Amino acid sequence: MTSTSQAHTVSETVQKATLAKKAAPKLGLLTTEQKNKALLQMADALTAEAQSIIAANGEDLQRGRENGTSDALLDRLALNRQRIEEMADGLRQVTFLTDPIGETLESFERPNGLQIRKIRVPLGVVGMIYEARPNVTVDAAGLCLKTGNAVVLRGSSSALSSNKRIVEVLHGALAKTDVPVDALQLIVDPSRSSVDEMMKLNGLIDVIIPRGGAALINNVVKNASVPVIETGAGICHTYIDESAQLDMALQIAINAKVQRPSVCNSMETLLIHRAFAERHLAMIADQFVQQRVELRGDANTRKLVPAIHEASAQDWDTEYNDYILNVRVVDGLNEALEHIRLHSTMHSECIVTEDAANAARFLQEVDAAAVYHNASTRFTDGFEFGFGAEIGISTQKLHARGPMGLPELTSIKYCIKGSGQIRD
Amino acid sequence: MTSTSQAHTVSETVQKATLAKKAAPKLGLLTTEQKNKALLQMADALTAEAQSIIAANGEDLQRGRENGTSDALLDRLALNRQRIEEMADGLRQVTFLTDPIGETLESFERPNGLQIRKIRVPLGVVGMIYEARPNVTVDAAGLCLKTGNAVVLRGSSSALSSNKRIVEVLHGALAKTDVPVDALQLIVDPSRSSVDEMMKLNGLIDVIIPRGGAALINNVVKNASVPVIETGAGICHTYIDESAQLDMALQIAINAKVQRPSVCNSMETLLIHRAFAERHLAMIADQFVQQRVELRGDANTRKLVPAIHEASAQDWDTEYNDYILNVRVVDGLNEALEHIRLHSTMHSECIVTEDAANAARFLQEVDAAAVYHNASTRFTDGFEFGFGAEIGISTQKLHARGPMGLPELTSIKYCIKGSGQIRD
Repeated sequence: MTSTSQAHTVSETVQKATLAKKAAPKLGLLTTEQKNKALLQMADALTAEAQSIIAANGEDLQRGRENGTSDALLDRLALNRQRIEEMADGLRQVTFLTDPIGETLESFERPNGLQIRKIRVPLGVVGMIYEARPNVTVDAAGLCLKTGNAVVLRGSSSALSSNKRIVEVLHGALAKTDVPVDALQLIVDPSRSSVDEMMKLNGLIDVIIPRGGAALINNVVKNASVPVIETGAGICHTYIDESAQLDMALQIAINAKVQRPSVCNSMETLLIHRAFAERHLAMIADQFVQQRVELRGDANTRKLVPAIHEASAQDWDTEYNDYILNVRVVDGLNEALEHIRLHSTMHSECIVTEDAANAARFLQEVDAAAVYHNASTRFTDGFEFGFGAEIGISTQKLHARGPMGLPELTSIKYCIKGSGQIRD
Repeated sequence: MTSTSQAHTVSETVQKATLAKKAAPKLGLLTTEQKNKALLQMADALTAEAQSIIAANGEDLQRGRENGTSDALLDRLALNRQRIEEMADGLRQVTFLTDPIGETLESFERPNGLQIRKIRVPLGVVGMIYEARPNVTVDAAGLCLKTGNAVVLRGSSSALSSNKRIVEVLHGALAKTDVPVDALQLIVDPSRSSVDEMMKLNGLIDVIIPRGGAALINNVVKNASVPVIETGAGICHTYIDESAQLDMALQIAINAKVQRPSVCNSMETLLIHRAFAERHLAMIADQFVQQRVELRGDANTRKLVPAIHEASAQDWDTEYNDYILNVRVVDGLNEALEHIRLHSTMHSECIVTEDAANAARFLQEVDAAAVYHNASTRFTDGFEFGFGAEIGISTQKLHARGPMGLPELTSIKYCIKGSGQIRD
């Protein structure tokens, strides 16, 4: 078999993942300065090439309009000078973040004289499978570079022209730096088979991070043999306890629902203590309706406010990401905890209360990435937590949980120095 | 459908995982004292019931002999009073280890006044799929209990009678404590379908740790949708550099191969610098042969010691776990690094050298869980690292890498205290 015919049998996905894998070791050896210089080059290139990126984005938008894509989705897809400048600024911000690579996490000596150091190293090759927004392309490229990881990107076909142009621009920038251009790979095969293949590339890809809707994430979680960090799904609850301050409870609940309903840390279900509900539910419901939120309630809720429609059994397990809210009246903390245990996706949960014991119990007993006392669940976010970056919000318990910053894109290794020690 | 007929449609695996999942939240709330008391009860029960465990083990051994199981495997399966006492002592040792649960890992305040604490919590439900040795049953039960995790065990059918009796004894012990008995579950269905099912129980099992041969681990890695911590496979290399001290190099190499060839941190391939090989390979080969090790070499090795058989292409990627060793003569560090990059399973790798620059490069550039300078790879072990326990050795980069002690059996959560903060 000639090498030409061999090349034909290897898919784009395997080819590009192989290139990324080859680049990865070099990436792990770069200094912080080398990486930061490359980030600034990338940022400047985006700014300089804004026009050609907007032109490519125009192709995606036109295709989208022809395919009947909703205005909301088109808006998320659309790039303009300001959005491109924001992406470039994002890369510049990453230069200010502490480089985690090479950090000594632990260092100890064993009785036999072995000196063991646990140090942070890159994961290797990160695979991203994601939808729509082209800014994920830039964010992922920047965060993976800063953490010494090569990255294989598989964006959605709806943003293909934009992503292609962005990666061309970033490649052009990397070519002027010490960073191997191959460290950044974009899969352009728009078929499902490239996703299916990518998920099985054990040995070439070290971790896959899916970002997008529930269908995309479920597909990856169910079918990947490469380790996955599950992100995204958020059925978040706010429980208003009997002793809650009315004003605070109302503001937190409204904020958790309507400040940005489309995101994973927004609230889907409001649980209210019976005594509090008897006093205030009518007013609270009215406030939500004024914010154009459709309410769906259990029987006790509808006894107090008959205008509220009945919630179906399925509603309690639905992430609306929309102006819809489930409301349930509960007898107290125990019932709230039980409801959350049964319906939570373990993302973000909140109790509003003035009762310290109830707050402590809620914080301890609720099993979620982020558990709040008297604050909106909308704060579960890498920037709001002060991480300066975020590649996603993990809803699993392995490796990373909650907002993932730079350290969550790293692994460790043990370096051991001896003087001839052997094992008895 | 009546509840009785429903119960018939639920498999043993789902039933037991559901019980574990229900027990898990209670487990996370136990104090260190409650857990330690339970560990001591479990240890005492094993000691007290040694005779009935040995009797059950006898059934496994008899079945094994009837099925033509090898003596080596029968030996690993066999329990006697001393081995049971060692398992009990293992549980007692775990009481002395620091309880990681509840530890505050980070604590910070945001400009808006939010107080964020990152604390250690249990993973939830740990699934173990493992082979042969019944001591894994006890080890896993003890380590999971100390870390507040419920555990679902699926041991091999060859140890089923032993595992059943051990778990009965441990359940009897737990019944006298504050630990819910349901926290410890053993799947007794010996068919492959219970393994297949267990690997897909997302939502009931939080992580699966496979322990056993390559076939078992590959099956879990390829087919699980539950997050997996891959353990075990070890194609470990020792590279003897030009400047190595002969005595030290020989001792380390012999130790890495023969001190216990059946385990994952033993050496499979010896790489030797050409200049060193020209002076010493004949003597080194002789020493290995005296230790009953079969050598397989590349062309350069066979030029120096023609008696060595030729290694096949496949041999360099084979984990022998036996008295067989590949030998390759390399031109220097670069070629050694390249060989390791291509053939390592990223478990444990060693350089023997007196050259500080070469040692530093090896430690930095080799991508493995444990990288050694002048010490045997056999030290990659939770006890040798001083962790006081080990549930396995991770060969993946996500969550845990290298020997996994108690902290590796935990996750984190963010607890956030506010005073009414909402997001702008």
